[in-house]
Amino acid sequence: MIKVAIIGVGTVGSSVANILKKNAKIIEARSGKKIVPVIGVVKNLNKKRDVDIELTDDINEVLDRDDIDIYIELMGGVENAYNVVKKILKKGKTVITANKALLAYHRYELQQEARVLDTSIGIEASVAGGIPVVKALREGLSANQILAIKGIINGTCNFILSKMMNEKANFKHTLEEAQKLGYAEADPTFDVGGFDTAHKLLILASIAYGVDAKPEDILIEGIENISPEDIYFANDFEYNIKLLGIAKKIGKKVELRVHPALVPKDKMLAKVDGVMNGVSIVGDSVGETMYYGAGAGGDATASAVIADIIDIVREDKSSPMLGYIYSPDKEKLTLMPQKDIETKYYVRVKVKDEIGVLAKISKLLQEHKISVDSFLQKPEIKENDYTTLFFSTHTCKESDIQKALEKIANLEFMLEKPMIIRIED
Amino acid sequence: MIKVAIIGVGTVGSSVANILKKNAKIIEARSGKKIVPVIGVVKNLNKKRDVDIELTDDINEVLDRDDIDIYIELMGGVENAYNVVKKILKKGKTVITANKALLAYHRYELQQEARVLDTSIGIEASVAGGIPVVKALREGLSANQILAIKGIINGTCNFILSKMMNEKANFKHTLEEAQKLGYAEADPTFDVGGFDTAHKLLILASIAYGVDAKPEDILIEGIENISPEDIYFANDFEYNIKLLGIAKKIGKKVELRVHPALVPKDKMLAKVDGVMNGVSIVGDSVGETMYYGAGAGGDATASAVIADIIDIVREDKSSPMLGYIYSPDKEKLTLMPQKDIETKYYVRVKVKDEIGVLAKISKLLQEHKISVDSFLQKPEIKENDYTTLFFSTHTCKESDIQKALEKIANLEFMLEKPMIIRIED
Repeated sequence: MIKVAIIGVGTVGSSVANILKKNAKIIEARSGKKIVPVIGVVKNLNKKRDVDIELTDDINEVLDRDDIDIYIELMGGVENAYNVVKKILKKGKTVITANKALLAYHRYELQQEARVLDTSIGIEASVAGGIPVVKALREGLSANQILAIKGIINGTCNFILSKMMNEKANFKHTLEEAQKLGYAEADPTFDVGGFDTAHKLLILASIAYGVDAKPEDILIEGIENISPEDIYFANDFEYNIKLLGIAKKIGKKVELRVHPALVPKDKMLAKVDGVMNGVSIVGDSVGETMYYGAGAGGDATASAVIADIIDIVREDKSSPMLGYIYSPDKEKLTLMPQKDIETKYYVRVKVKDEIGVLAKISKLLQEHKISVDSFLQKPEIKENDYTTLFFSTHTCKESDIQKALEKIANLEFMLEKPMIIRIED
Repeated sequence: MIKVAIIGVGTVGSSVANILKKNAKIIEARSGKKIVPVIGVVKNLNKKRDVDIELTDDINEVLDRDDIDIYIELMGGVENAYNVVKKILKKGKTVITANKALLAYHRYELQQEARVLDTSIGIEASVAGGIPVVKALREGLSANQILAIKGIINGTCNFILSKMMNEKANFKHTLEEAQKLGYAEADPTFDVGGFDTAHKLLILASIAYGVDAKPEDILIEGIENISPEDIYFANDFEYNIKLLGIAKKIGKKVELRVHPALVPKDKMLAKVDGVMNGVSIVGDSVGETMYYGAGAGGDATASAVIADIIDIVREDKSSPMLGYIYSPDKEKLTLMPQKDIETKYYVRVKVKDEIGVLAKISKLLQEHKISVDSFLQKPEIKENDYTTLFFSTHTCKESDIQKALEKIANLEFMLEKPMIIRIED
């Protein structure tokens, strides 16, 4: 019998306990052992919970027990969780965690600790909820050099963007709706600002490339500035707008970035709608594969937690292979500086409607080696004496376009800072 | 060092050898050992091959060698391959196979053999090429009762159906085009008749349900009878037509069936276009997940073969866990008889354009407890005195609709046998 302790019995923790009971028979058949949740740690014992296991508010008592085989860390937060996970590993016990913030900051250190102590960390639930994308990347595609990962890995953002696209609605209004429906937090910054996506991207990029970076090191842009005009342009040019976490290997460098992107409507990733998640992974042998499913929710996330439990029990040893983030090229791959990233851009500028505007903008673009791919000005998008221009570029360098846009922003006829959305096709 | 022998060095076999060399460094980092293809078995030594390993036409000499750790069976066919795989297992060696026909007939027997002899069979490459769907089903979703699997797992059929939908073309013409492009065989029966899909479905169903069935036991219908009128109806009612392999658990029974199906255009599965494959798996905890990618091709299939090699080498033991098709409910789940399958149907009937036709058909349907959901008769689909009627039904029993259609077929105003397509929404 494998005894499991659940630290943090909220939505996911309750689901873990309940599914371990509900599907006990198949889980035993698949793992070869009975797996029993024996104790849950909560902050508030008085809160009513839909779960049928013993609860305690004394975490240290649970950490000190010797009969627990596997700990599930679902407490959230970074520093507290870090101390708890470290303590469990030091006991030589297995940890399974859904805590992407913890892993975004401490994944290599915790992995190293687990390896030294001959135990393991399961991390499947930390990215894309129930979709087994960590396993796909680490094991299913292990024959491949990973060329690119592009993930829609934040359901809140995808819900908002899908709704904005379908209903041509504005961001503020759609966010409020998402909040009413429980798809967005009261303070939505972590989701809509792209930070949650960044945490998950760093985990996937570590598996694929062994590149060590913190959220602060990478380009992160949220979806707050997407306007109905952008939606209009996107529709006109057959794109959907998606918040993507992107990892790409370019030579010995790895690009990591999070930002809204225009994705051609006929790409599978563009078809991932509403709160769902989708991760596209391109390997040098397999080509493009995509993984789709619920990226959040108690039962879906618990599905990933329990898959990790079963894997560990099946192996029948405290194996550093599970949750082991391998990095064959770790010494050699480094983070691509943000300024060197190359991609295509869509740019929206609001300008005074006067002669010579286009010429001046074009000249500045040309001076910065930026070549325009398509251009749009629609008379219907016009208010008073101002008009909105849209253009998209061929592939150019992030630093070049930023410099050009800075100069464009200073032109006398500009109404506001130019807005960019990168294009991923 | 792990020595690999490749039996059958065609497209996939060459890719396996070439990728093992090209990606040797990362494969060694990921598996912990050097993996070296040392010998390939071919029928014709004179044929030029794009591969840089020693070749022989003496299979017995290779089977008798004691220094081979892993055999890759890519020879195809059922009986010959069966004898070869059995011989390898009897030596206590590992086999990795992409041979779905072999597994459709002998998978339980070979699994049992491997378990008794404490060795393993890797089968990832046998379903959906490079998509790690066997791993997702067996390991990634191991916390779940699998409620349903619906797979687009034959690229030839999906290419033809996608083209028919997009271009409103007829089957015969599109098949010829597919043949010209190399997407369909000279004798296309195995693909377009649904048999290839059935083989793969049986493998997936064995992993999910442990149900033992042979291709002859299940409902298999191909795509040969899909007409431009069906495409017309599908478009009108917002469906795509897909050849699906379907496994569903209904109580203690498992439905297994292969047939063209109308899938609502907004489902992810409906969006899998061209030669690509997609498998939707619904678990009781995770909800719907989908796996998408190239279902065929040398490199993509080799990606799956090598993932199996790496998994086996990582485990560092001849483990029956890999390629082990577990069946927790094996004793209890049995195949649902075809007549008891319940679904929705679309029916196309070509009739003489005269008064009373609709009344007579409706009466027969009613007598067989079949309730009509929607009905379509478009004046533009009319030739001479004949007209085509389309209707879709609410959920009803396969045996009921077959009986009703048999009677309808005998009505004096019928021009041809009614055509059905099942609806999966």
